[in-house]
Amino acid sequence: MAASSGDELGTRCSVEIRVRYVECDPMGYLHHAKYWEYFEVARTELLRQSGIRYRDLEREGVLFVVYKTACRYILPVRYDDLVTVSVAVERTSSTRVDHSYRVSRGGELTCEATSTLACVGRDGRPRRMPAALWSDA
Amino acid sequence: MAASSGDELGTRCSVEIRVRYVECDPMGYLHHAKYWEYFEVARTELLRQSGIRYRDLEREGVLFVVYKTACRYILPVRYDDLVTVSVAVERTSSTRVDHSYRVSRGGELTCEATSTLACVGRDGRPRRMPAALWSDA
Amino acid sequence: MAASSGDELGTRCSVEIRVRYVECDPMGYLHHAKYWEYFEVARTELLRQSGIRYRDLEREGVLFVVYKTACRYILPVRYDDLVTVSVAVERTSSTRVDHSYRVSRGGELTCEATSTLACVGRDGRPRRMPAALWSDA
Amino acid sequence: MAASSGDELGTRCSVEIRVRYVECDPMGYLHHAKYWEYFEVARTELLRQSGIRYRDLEREGVLFVVYKTACRYILPVRYDDLVTVSVAVERTSSTRVDHSYRVSRGGELTCEATSTLACVGRDGRPRRMPAALWSDA
Repeated sequence: MAASSGDELGTRCSVEIRVRYVECDPMGYLHHAKYWEYFEVARTELLRQSGIRYRDLEREGVLFVVYKTACRYILPVRYDDLVTVSVAVERTSSTRVDHSYRVSRGGELTCEATSTLACVGRDGRPRRMPAALWSDA
Repeated sequence: MAASSGDELGTRCSVEIRVRYVECDPMGYLHHAKYWEYFEVARTELLRQSGIRYRDLEREGVLFVVYKTACRYILPVRYDDLVTVSVAVERTSSTRVDHSYRVSRGGELTCEATSTLACVGRDGRPRRMPAALWSDA
Repeated sequence: MAASSGDELGTRCSVEIRVRYVECDPMGYLHHAKYWEYFEVARTELLRQSGIRYRDLEREGVLFVVYKTACRYILPVRYDDLVTVSVAVERTSSTRVDHSYRVSRGGELTCEATSTLACVGRDGRPRRMPAALWSDA
Repeated sequence: MAASSGDELGTRCSVEIRVRYVECDPMGYLHHAKYWEYFEVARTELLRQSGIRYRDLEREGVLFVVYKTACRYILPVRYDDLVTVSVAVERTSSTRVDHSYRVSRGGELTCEATSTLACVGRDGRPRRMPAALWSDA
């Protein structure tokens, strides 16, 4: 999967999210933990774009657990802001996938992040992903 | 279970909860949705007090879903406030249980609420609770 | 504001919300507390439809606090479900507003609720709403 | 503040947190975003241990925003698990503080993380921390 090119189906996706009141803290900022909820939304849509529903995967015993994350918060985001959350597949193996994320508001980058997810079975043990989800082409 | 008396084991329980920063909104108040998360914590401890772990019930296919709720918010609560959350069993049948809740801070009542939970199986259909959880004595 | 008719601008609004993974609990259901977060989103859009941004109101010291709520959960909703959340203004006075809510999925009603919000100032004391927000016509 | 030694008051703190039902996802695991809420709780207690309440700091216009985070999830944690969340100050300057975190359950490490917080004023611009919060001794 030539994720770096980002031209192919399923390697890149953007969603628009309106910041909710409940997601903001007493400072009035979107709480730093909530970004990971936004990134999860973006991953769901990235899969859907390839015709895959994560909830179907789970039903079949293909689960993805978050193994490693990193995030840099650049500018605060506030209630009612409309942000664009982009996700890209950076690397895949048969058992792992690395994503990168960017959050922007009005074209201005406000946050960037990365994560590594591992594929596990219902027993929590590592397993290979279905072939549709990766290729080492 | 003579819940109305409230003297017996398992009919009444109080927990202390420190309000978290993330739970407060831009007004600086504990968000109204979060109270239901506190009530859930109190119900977990109420069961534990009777020697029952809700997570064991779930493992055995005894699930409780919230069917009806009502809440009155009297005074705002803020980040770092220490509140006492009390729960009492008000009524039980073989398939349902009614709870009442009170939140107080420094002896002052800040919120009161009620809920009805229904017992369901893993298929989501109503089922009778295990006898240990209710009696119509 | 003849809210009961519901024909006028600003008395009724629907939003579509995709249920997020993080919002679902170990039963796989949208957690009952999260519905109040959805209702809040619907209220924000209801105001926007009348050309009012709640965040501007807050900046001007016009805050709305939730005073009373009630909810009936009819059918469970799951991760990735697309639900329609409708809000209607049922009654307004100079200091309070009553809303009703309905959540449906594929045309089927899954939840209904009501709330009363009170208008307060930055000091938390009751205050009259700006005239644009209500009329007793 | 000789944070590296970790022997002094205010450089190290542990809290016990019972995992809430609402914090767990359909896999049954504590959702990865929630760990940051736990770390925030631990930071609040770390400050309190030095006689400082973060909410008093905020009142005085001393705010801390999260600037950078990293996390490694080692073992899943479930509803009703009792976890120990430890935080340590790793490094401080006049405007930033680095923390490290460890989550364990029954003595077994389940997660480790780091963060950098920046001190800002009410206007969101960087400012020096009060002297009590750091020293380059």
